[in-house]
Amino acid sequence: MSTEFAAATAVRRRADGRYDARIAEGWDIGGNANGGYVIALAARAMADAAGRPPLSVTAHYLSPGRPGPVVVDVDVIRSGRRMATVAARVSADTTPVLAMLGTFADQAPGGPSVITGEPPILPPSDECVSAAPPVASGFHTRIMSSMRPVDAGFRDGCPSGTAEVEGWFALPDSDQVDVFALLMATDAFAPVVFNRHEFPVGWSPTLELTVHVRGVPAPGPLRCRFASRFIADGMFDESGELWDSTGRLVAHSRQLALVPRG
Amino acid sequence: MSTEFAAATAVRRRADGRYDARIAEGWDIGGNANGGYVIALAARAMADAAGRPPLSVTAHYLSPGRPGPVVVDVDVIRSGRRMATVAARVSADTTPVLAMLGTFADQAPGGPSVITGEPPILPPSDECVSAAPPVASGFHTRIMSSMRPVDAGFRDGCPSGTAEVEGWFALPDSDQVDVFALLMATDAFAPVVFNRHEFPVGWSPTLELTVHVRGVPAPGPLRCRFASRFIADGMFDESGELWDSTGRLVAHSRQLALVPRG
Repeated sequence: MSTEFAAATAVRRRADGRYDARIAEGWDIGGNANGGYVIALAARAMADAAGRPPLSVTAHYLSPGRPGPVVVDVDVIRSGRRMATVAARVSADTTPVLAMLGTFADQAPGGPSVITGEPPILPPSDECVSAAPPVASGFHTRIMSSMRPVDAGFRDGCPSGTAEVEGWFALPDSDQVDVFALLMATDAFAPVVFNRHEFPVGWSPTLELTVHVRGVPAPGPLRCRFASRFIADGMFDESGELWDSTGRLVAHSRQLALVPRG
Repeated sequence: MSTEFAAATAVRRRADGRYDARIAEGWDIGGNANGGYVIALAARAMADAAGRPPLSVTAHYLSPGRPGPVVVDVDVIRSGRRMATVAARVSADTTPVLAMLGTFADQAPGGPSVITGEPPILPPSDECVSAAPPVASGFHTRIMSSMRPVDAGFRDGCPSGTAEVEGWFALPDSDQVDVFALLMATDAFAPVVFNRHEFPVGWSPTLELTVHVRGVPAPGPLRCRFASRFIADGMFDESGELWDSTGRLVAHSRQLALVPRG
């Protein structure tokens, strides 16, 4: 397991049932903590309270996360035999940062599989380009996410023309992407609208992100694909697929975000 | 506006800020209220508290809704200039029925559009087949949802082989599908796994449903497409697209559900 990621997303249950945590220094993009990182932190508290790992989580972003202490309020709404439904709120002082709602359960392997699609075919990661947006990103020094060169043209003012990004995700100090890092991976790539010339490269705030966890990743890097189909009225969807090293789909995500305004 | 639908999803704010509502008789499928119907009811209370219509809502189902009084607890987590983030819980007596989290905001038309895909090409609705599952469905007498005949083979033991359903949605007493009926429409068709022979036709409980509202529907019926790409380990995703009569995408949905066990 990644020691650095685990330490940066650690939570501690207090006597009153709330969780203390800390948005660590250096997990930011342009000063604000990466959204997927904050989700991972909150999901750890939720999973602890549920006694089960995340299966489907939804986050709504309320304000940018800044380094420093946060409190996670967790409410186990229902805990059944197989699944638990949990709400959570991350606050820094009195400022709400993130609201979450999720179902937590172990995977139950078995039964027929019908999978449409397959992992993206990627160049080796050393031929790929950092998946960071073109701003100072401490976050992208903590993780390894890289894009196909064809998806990185926006960094030099040459967007590919297709609202798509494909690439690798891994952690630098571990071969194992655990389920919390998997949640984070869904928000660890540059927004796909950067590859459409209609939009400037700039801040593209996520309003909502939902991740369905479909398996525990095998050791090794993830192959990821993100794409948008519906860009209109200043908003876009972005759907993600994350495949593990054995070629198994381990998560799919979808977010609604605002297009950059420059 | 549909008088019947509006009455069946009406909410009343009490002095203590909670909302009284009623799961109406006859909006059930096999005795349990349709999930999309309960979402519409809860979203009305959330929109009232937010003073804005739904933009992105996520629901986690906790227990089947039965006809009778319910209370909707609404918590406006953050209310900004343009958007409000709202959590809600629907309870019948002390039984939790539904947990929701959403962002509420008016649409802000304008800016570049890049839409990949188009509305499904459907036979006229009088050549389509009721989109009800093959059990007693009061719900499907309250709404008009119909499938292409090719998607209805499962009703006679001949599933199409493709985890897909396309069809029409409308309300019987109004030409206008409002934003709350639009939410309901995303859960108003038979589960797409019925069209795969690997699975029996039976109860397929939704765990989580997220809807992104992308426009206010123009008058007229909606054209809808639902499909699943990832069926594995007893679960499946189902993505929906809802297009209005002018050919505009007005909502996209995604749910995670359990495959029927027979």
